[in-house]
Amino acid sequence: MKKVYIFLADGFELIEALAPYDIFRRGGIDVKTVSVTEQKIVSASNKVKVEADITYKDSDFSDADLIYLPGGYPGYENLCNNKIVGEIAINQYKSGKFLAAICAGPTVLLKNKIGLGKKVTSHSCCKAEMSENYQFTGNDVEQDGNLFTSTGAGQSIKFGLFLAQALCGDEVLAKIKNGMEIK
Amino acid sequence: MKKVYIFLADGFELIEALAPYDIFRRGGIDVKTVSVTEQKIVSASNKVKVEADITYKDSDFSDADLIYLPGGYPGYENLCNNKIVGEIAINQYKSGKFLAAICAGPTVLLKNKIGLGKKVTSHSCCKAEMSENYQFTGNDVEQDGNLFTSTGAGQSIKFGLFLAQALCGDEVLAKIKNGMEIK
Repeated sequence: MKKVYIFLADGFELIEALAPYDIFRRGGIDVKTVSVTEQKIVSASNKVKVEADITYKDSDFSDADLIYLPGGYPGYENLCNNKIVGEIAINQYKSGKFLAAICAGPTVLLKNKIGLGKKVTSHSCCKAEMSENYQFTGNDVEQDGNLFTSTGAGQSIKFGLFLAQALCGDEVLAKIKNGMEIK
Repeated sequence: MKKVYIFLADGFELIEALAPYDIFRRGGIDVKTVSVTEQKIVSASNKVKVEADITYKDSDFSDADLIYLPGGYPGYENLCNNKIVGEIAINQYKSGKFLAAICAGPTVLLKNKIGLGKKVTSHSCCKAEMSENYQFTGNDVEQDGNLFTSTGAGQSIKFGLFLAQALCGDEVLAKIKNGMEIK
């Protein structure tokens, strides 16, 4: 069974984190939300409080098939400023397994010099800084090797489906889409 | 400021409830999640625990511009079996203000004989029973007067945007879409 970890910092973007969670669960993926604070309860950027499955001290993430970094303000800044998150992301990328970021989440890649020069996309608010260090495409969803990026909350379902397909293939994707009423 | 209440029963579908929440907040709408249990903490169908803003005993919902009923199993059954939820939905519909349901949420309308004969859509799993009592269209999103329906989790963002436009107009919709990176 594939394993996915979705990192939640205080101020994370709700749809960006939880739409893919929902999609992955529908695909039979072992997905866990990970609080990157000391507490399991994390507050989204719109103040919705969610109880994460684990905190980041509960795993070394060596079994992660995918680590997923949502955006949201100030969630993405809290991810950027967390050195342990940075180390986990660097290790995940170097391992060749999947690393994904959406909205302003891709700035965590930049901050940790992950995949510099690769093709990426991000929210337009980060376009300038991302363009200086990456091949910025501006596509809704982008993949370059094991690095996956997307632009923002409105693409959360599309990005979740794209990642589910990359992890589990077409048959699982079809099952997920059927249950979600996506024709 | 427009007021929206999203009803959460244990087993609610996560994206269906929270994608519209996120969208409404982006549009400056006063949106509240409402636990229809005694506790504020509600468990989604995929076991994610969310803290609702209020419980249904904290309001009479007479100020609601929109009441929104998500699906999810067994969330929709818990909504169907809750008489107070039924009374609130009936009052909302009779007031002429907006009532919305997605996925299997439209069975709450049927259970409470709300808008029988109107044009609706729902998850395909409820098509048979809905078709006997409504004009079932099967469209992703449907509106008949003040009754709004949608098919499932994959249409959550589309449905949220549709409702935000109906509540607040094109200018607010454009602002929301821009922030969410929907072109």
